[in-house]
Amino acid sequence: MILNSTLMQEIGPSAIRSITSKNAQKAAEGIYVTNFAGGRPDAALFPYTELKEITNMIFSTEDANSVQYGPSSGYMPLRNEIAELMKQMQVNAAAENIYISAGAGQAISFISRALLSDENKVVVCENPTYVASIDTFRAFRADVIGIDMEADGMNLDQLEAVLKTRKVQFIYTIPDFQNPTGTTMSLQKRKRLVELAQMYNTVIVEDAPYAMIHFEGEIMPAIKSFDKYDRVIYIGSFSKIVCPGLRVGWIVADRESVQKLIYMRMRDDSFCNTLAERQIFHYLHDYDFESHLLKIRKAYKSRKDAMIQAIRSDFPERTEVIEPNGGLFAWINLPPEIDAMEFFEAGFEKNIAVVPGRFFHTDGGGNGTVRLCFATVEEPEILEKVSELGKILKKLMDTKKREV
Amino acid sequence: MILNSTLMQEIGPSAIRSITSKNAQKAAEGIYVTNFAGGRPDAALFPYTELKEITNMIFSTEDANSVQYGPSSGYMPLRNEIAELMKQMQVNAAAENIYISAGAGQAISFISRALLSDENKVVVCENPTYVASIDTFRAFRADVIGIDMEADGMNLDQLEAVLKTRKVQFIYTIPDFQNPTGTTMSLQKRKRLVELAQMYNTVIVEDAPYAMIHFEGEIMPAIKSFDKYDRVIYIGSFSKIVCPGLRVGWIVADRESVQKLIYMRMRDDSFCNTLAERQIFHYLHDYDFESHLLKIRKAYKSRKDAMIQAIRSDFPERTEVIEPNGGLFAWINLPPEIDAMEFFEAGFEKNIAVVPGRFFHTDGGGNGTVRLCFATVEEPEILEKVSELGKILKKLMDTKKREV
Repeated sequence: MILNSTLMQEIGPSAIRSITSKNAQKAAEGIYVTNFAGGRPDAALFPYTELKEITNMIFSTEDANSVQYGPSSGYMPLRNEIAELMKQMQVNAAAENIYISAGAGQAISFISRALLSDENKVVVCENPTYVASIDTFRAFRADVIGIDMEADGMNLDQLEAVLKTRKVQFIYTIPDFQNPTGTTMSLQKRKRLVELAQMYNTVIVEDAPYAMIHFEGEIMPAIKSFDKYDRVIYIGSFSKIVCPGLRVGWIVADRESVQKLIYMRMRDDSFCNTLAERQIFHYLHDYDFESHLLKIRKAYKSRKDAMIQAIRSDFPERTEVIEPNGGLFAWINLPPEIDAMEFFEAGFEKNIAVVPGRFFHTDGGGNGTVRLCFATVEEPEILEKVSELGKILKKLMDTKKREV
Repeated sequence: MILNSTLMQEIGPSAIRSITSKNAQKAAEGIYVTNFAGGRPDAALFPYTELKEITNMIFSTEDANSVQYGPSSGYMPLRNEIAELMKQMQVNAAAENIYISAGAGQAISFISRALLSDENKVVVCENPTYVASIDTFRAFRADVIGIDMEADGMNLDQLEAVLKTRKVQFIYTIPDFQNPTGTTMSLQKRKRLVELAQMYNTVIVEDAPYAMIHFEGEIMPAIKSFDKYDRVIYIGSFSKIVCPGLRVGWIVADRESVQKLIYMRMRDDSFCNTLAERQIFHYLHDYDFESHLLKIRKAYKSRKDAMIQAIRSDFPERTEVIEPNGGLFAWINLPPEIDAMEFFEAGFEKNIAVVPGRFFHTDGGGNGTVRLCFATVEEPEILEKVSELGKILKKLMDTKKREV
């Protein structure tokens, strides 16, 4: 192997691959698996016809310069449009505060590279959290410290205890319908988090891919909306609300930081796919994006309702489920005698895939937790298969009892 | 500024921006500037109509899964097609040796991140070389050592002297119609370079964006084609031979290294724009790519001929020009009394832009050198404006004489 550095020796697939590759293998064998394991939006909800129209229009009305080298700062009409969109999260931003990235993943990677370049790097995040983010922070050799989750977001007293003793480069949070727990951070905690960042001289990275997929009430004000100190970097993504394949996400930050990210990009992939920037711009600007959001919220809410209903009626007592108010995920605490890996294996044998929650934990914990994605399965199948999972679980518990 | 690390304090625009931003400013003022300064391919030569057809076809024959999450390993039909394409550079590769990147820039950045993660990092490159690559290596805090260029590529004795005394992470080279000098590395040097890499236990990064834009004879065998030791990482790009805006490039390396790059990508932008992968695949597979290459070679050769002819006839004696056998650039050594910055300023006043060669140097040298890009200007304008540059140069020399 040519790429023979310490980093490359260490780097490997995410632990969660042990699950997803099993899934892929069954698919390759032509076996249908009900997929509650994924984290994808439903392709049937993508505005595919509209994207076709838009793309045709771009090719017809613009010339070949639309696929020429583009600015590292991003396509200005799209930056303007995103600045406008941020008002929905109650964030005031100008185009110069907006950085277009190749999806939220690149945004997380660039911010990590920027902030984790010095020695003794510490990132604090929710425990559990998005597994690819943990992997990214660790690839930058950060010490990742997980903070317990509560019903209204991370435990801020526990966070403060860490901030008192360690120099923390940034606090990573997914405040809306968190991946994996579905939890939403309360307004009160959002405000206090900003104050803590100011008090302990650190940075908040607010990862908000699900912010606009809320099921009830209004969109929550972003943590960034309370950021009177310029301490919050907001990350948005079109992957869940338009489609992932075009790879368009964004960062909202102070102008100087955005400019530094642009300089970084001149030393990486140079600029975003120029056609993708135009496709997303026209979709936001020329089409009824609000109706589209209503449509996907309605679809996902209905699937969430089916899943929560089935869990409550068919899972054994002492199962705890967090009902999310948005996003793609429901989170389950199994009865204490059950290990989620066993549950996964038993479900997978019946061609139903879930994800054991321990993969999302920073500390090897969460053995009794499970993440279920309701986004890509229709309601009747959700009812049937969640009910089947309930039976599988009861059977596992009976076996345990007999063993005792 | 939130992004307040040492790296972010240091990072800034490339020095060459002082030139390109002047250019952009005149354009914004509506002043036409003859652009010999850029490094872009000519958008008029992009297969724009074909890309429109292809995109329409993709939207009509595939479903929304074509813009769903894609594999980090890249779109398999495209990996196969690129493996096939590599035969033209006499490289035998399977799809598993091909990694799809978001342009060559991302490939250079990923390889740098992979190989420059340890302490005491040294990169050796041609002096002068592509300025964005120097900037990338330095952003990874590498010590960049430049090796003198000769008519047949870098001075390998000088390289060997460095390899004897320093541990070098990799040797970066642009062997075909190099940016900025237009020089091509000889077959003999390509072979010896591989042997040197083996002897001194290092890696060659072969950056080959212009390989298929040769003006005479056959495509040169890539350095990778002599790589019996698995010591060469080859980087290709569709930016110059299809268009840059879709951001598709590739790496050819051993399977294990490709797998490691895929793991790295799971911690960055996750996967390539899935539509772009399909667009490029269909263009290579369904259309006459060979005819397209013939067309762009013919156009650039004709512009190169015009430029070389005009330099030879209208520039003062003691001007040395390297006539390239491909690519986009001609390289000039001015008569020794002239500083290229003065020449740039005088030309720019007359609305003709060139790039002083010192920006491409690793060591602050090259004050008497200039890069001229012939790719985006038509022949009559090349003849007229290069002739005018010759007059400007003679006038500068007369002024110098009077001063003496």
